[in-house]
Amino acid sequence: MSQHDEFIRRCYELAVSAANKGNHPFGAVLVHNGRIIVEAENTVTTGDDQTRHAELNLVVEAQRAYPLSVLHESILYSSTAPCAMCAAAMWSSGIRKVVYGVAYETFANMIPGKYRYMPIEELYERLGTPLESVRGVLEEEGVKVYDHWPEP
Amino acid sequence: MSQHDEFIRRCYELAVSAANKGNHPFGAVLVHNGRIIVEAENTVTTGDDQTRHAELNLVVEAQRAYPLSVLHESILYSSTAPCAMCAAAMWSSGIRKVVYGVAYETFANMIPGKYRYMPIEELYERLGTPLESVRGVLEEEGVKVYDHWPEP
Repeated sequence: MSQHDEFIRRCYELAVSAANKGNHPFGAVLVHNGRIIVEAENTVTTGDDQTRHAELNLVVEAQRAYPLSVLHESILYSSTAPCAMCAAAMWSSGIRKVVYGVAYETFANMIPGKYRYMPIEELYERLGTPLESVRGVLEEEGVKVYDHWPEP
Repeated sequence: MSQHDEFIRRCYELAVSAANKGNHPFGAVLVHNGRIIVEAENTVTTGDDQTRHAELNLVVEAQRAYPLSVLHESILYSSTAPCAMCAAAMWSSGIRKVVYGVAYETFANMIPGKYRYMPIEELYERLGTPLESVRGVLEEEGVKVYDHWPEP
């Protein structure tokens, strides 16, 4: 079992928890020195706010609670590859390490319509900031989380 | 006087209003058929939320109040060139037209430290979506707005 599995599984739990409340099934955690210090869920529907993705909620809470030095050292785990909005918010907040479950291509193939995206790796590179990223952790389990997607 | 001056001046007023409340001096308005339908200010400090830029606040309010068809037809005016997070949120919300006062290069030269950015024009192009953009409207007036920047 990879060292990342435990934290990605927690993201999947949070994603299911979000769906059970009527939100989109996405979750994220922030890990510092091997310990979860922030957890966040998607709150788009319950918050009536289309920007409230799990990662954006996480960034807000992390910046309230911790200094830049902690954010620099932490790893953001996410159930699915982050969108460009969240990736840019993570970049601004000082996060430099990311691990995600379902990869961009996989997500794009799972949902109806054409899903266009700019990968976080490309955004950080464009902004001249090194990013450590690991993708596709427990991806098959992550895809099953979408079964919980609430009816529109 | 360009047709954009009136709306950019309103953005500058909102930016000063934000600064008077202790927030960063940025403002934005959404214009549909020549009429302002949403106004927003930066609320980063008063909201204790680093993501609450004027454009992000505008997108949230616009998506609550109007259907996608209205967002497609509207022009987002902003006092300063939008950051990548806000640009991505605007893209997701369906906004396809933007006018801003202070341009990226000018802003980068005005503030201390190295300001790195990915222009909204480049982000939309990367995502394969046409964007109509006008930049640098009443830029000299816009730069003066930064004199109101609150003490940290």
